[in-house]
Amino acid sequence: MIERFEHQLKFLKEIDKMKSIFRQTILIDRSRREDDASHSWHFAVMAMLLYEHCADRSVNIERVLKMALVHDLIEIYAGDTFAYDTAGNVDKQQREQAAADKLFALLPSDQGEEIRAFWEEFDAEQTPDAKYACAIDRLQPFINNIMTEGHTWKRGGITTTQVYQRMDPIRVAMPDIWDFIVKSVGDCVEKGYLIG
Amino acid sequence: MIERFEHQLKFLKEIDKMKSIFRQTILIDRSRREDDASHSWHFAVMAMLLYEHCADRSVNIERVLKMALVHDLIEIYAGDTFAYDTAGNVDKQQREQAAADKLFALLPSDQGEEIRAFWEEFDAEQTPDAKYACAIDRLQPFINNIMTEGHTWKRGGITTTQVYQRMDPIRVAMPDIWDFIVKSVGDCVEKGYLIG
Repeated sequence: MIERFEHQLKFLKEIDKMKSIFRQTILIDRSRREDDASHSWHFAVMAMLLYEHCADRSVNIERVLKMALVHDLIEIYAGDTFAYDTAGNVDKQQREQAAADKLFALLPSDQGEEIRAFWEEFDAEQTPDAKYACAIDRLQPFINNIMTEGHTWKRGGITTTQVYQRMDPIRVAMPDIWDFIVKSVGDCVEKGYLIG
Repeated sequence: MIERFEHQLKFLKEIDKMKSIFRQTILIDRSRREDDASHSWHFAVMAMLLYEHCADRSVNIERVLKMALVHDLIEIYAGDTFAYDTAGNVDKQQREQAAADKLFALLPSDQGEEIRAFWEEFDAEQTPDAKYACAIDRLQPFINNIMTEGHTWKRGGITTTQVYQRMDPIRVAMPDIWDFIVKSVGDCVEKGYLIG
């Protein structure tokens, strides 16, 4: 038991680095860029509080919370790839698999496999749990962008077509809030936060 | 449904402030003080990965994760009170109740009550779920202190007696790792991170 704990401890120390992996998104108070640990926390709280808007009632919230907590861990070694960065996304999968090999090997092997499976399920976006998780992972920076005058959209010269494509998991998993997305996109174009 | 979503959204925007509430603890890479959102994330991941060390097997990990995610939300208005700050802890409860009244009122009332109940359960440390959650909430900064040469212990002139008292929930909820705590405390005294 103690040997397992020592491995877990090594992993839990290593993932402190999530707090220093910075995303493109800035905080709503604009004081700094958001880090992966904070994003993962916000994602998990959103998944918890918006569960009633998830159309598929078979979704298991405990599994979604676990997915939220670990979905970006591989960025400790692979870095954050901006969602709209086409070039960066070419070798993303390869970089992330190598990162996963390295990171999850720190854990006892059964647990490393379990956590890696959560990440892979999330990334594949096929199961009901992963589809809901993915919708929330898109909604979190969307709201952040609305609140910061389209910070990352403006920096990336992003268009409504790109945003709608990126937000599509929300339309699928949480249809009752899709009108909010459409209305917000319209408002953001009007305000110049987003290219129409 | 949409009216509920609007309330939830207001709350989810407000809690972005957790990312700018700074704790006494610094990150392991020492680049900055840890914020409440990052701490809550790390706490939740630890609770997930160390669950096998929780002696009471009736503990419901889904409830513990939810507790971890919301346990510090009231600090948005009440601020972070250093665990070893006796003066600051005198009016802590009053400040936190007032903060809870204000914050949870942003949510639809049933949901506000549900989240507040998670926080109150955590804070009372009476149920098996809260006892395990509390043990992890103590373990997270303990490990951080070990890794940063006792950063907050040295700043506060903290003694082993104070640390043992603070860590006691770990002894109760996770007895199989208590030896690790005792050994670590000894090492830290030897290295001068902590007053013996």
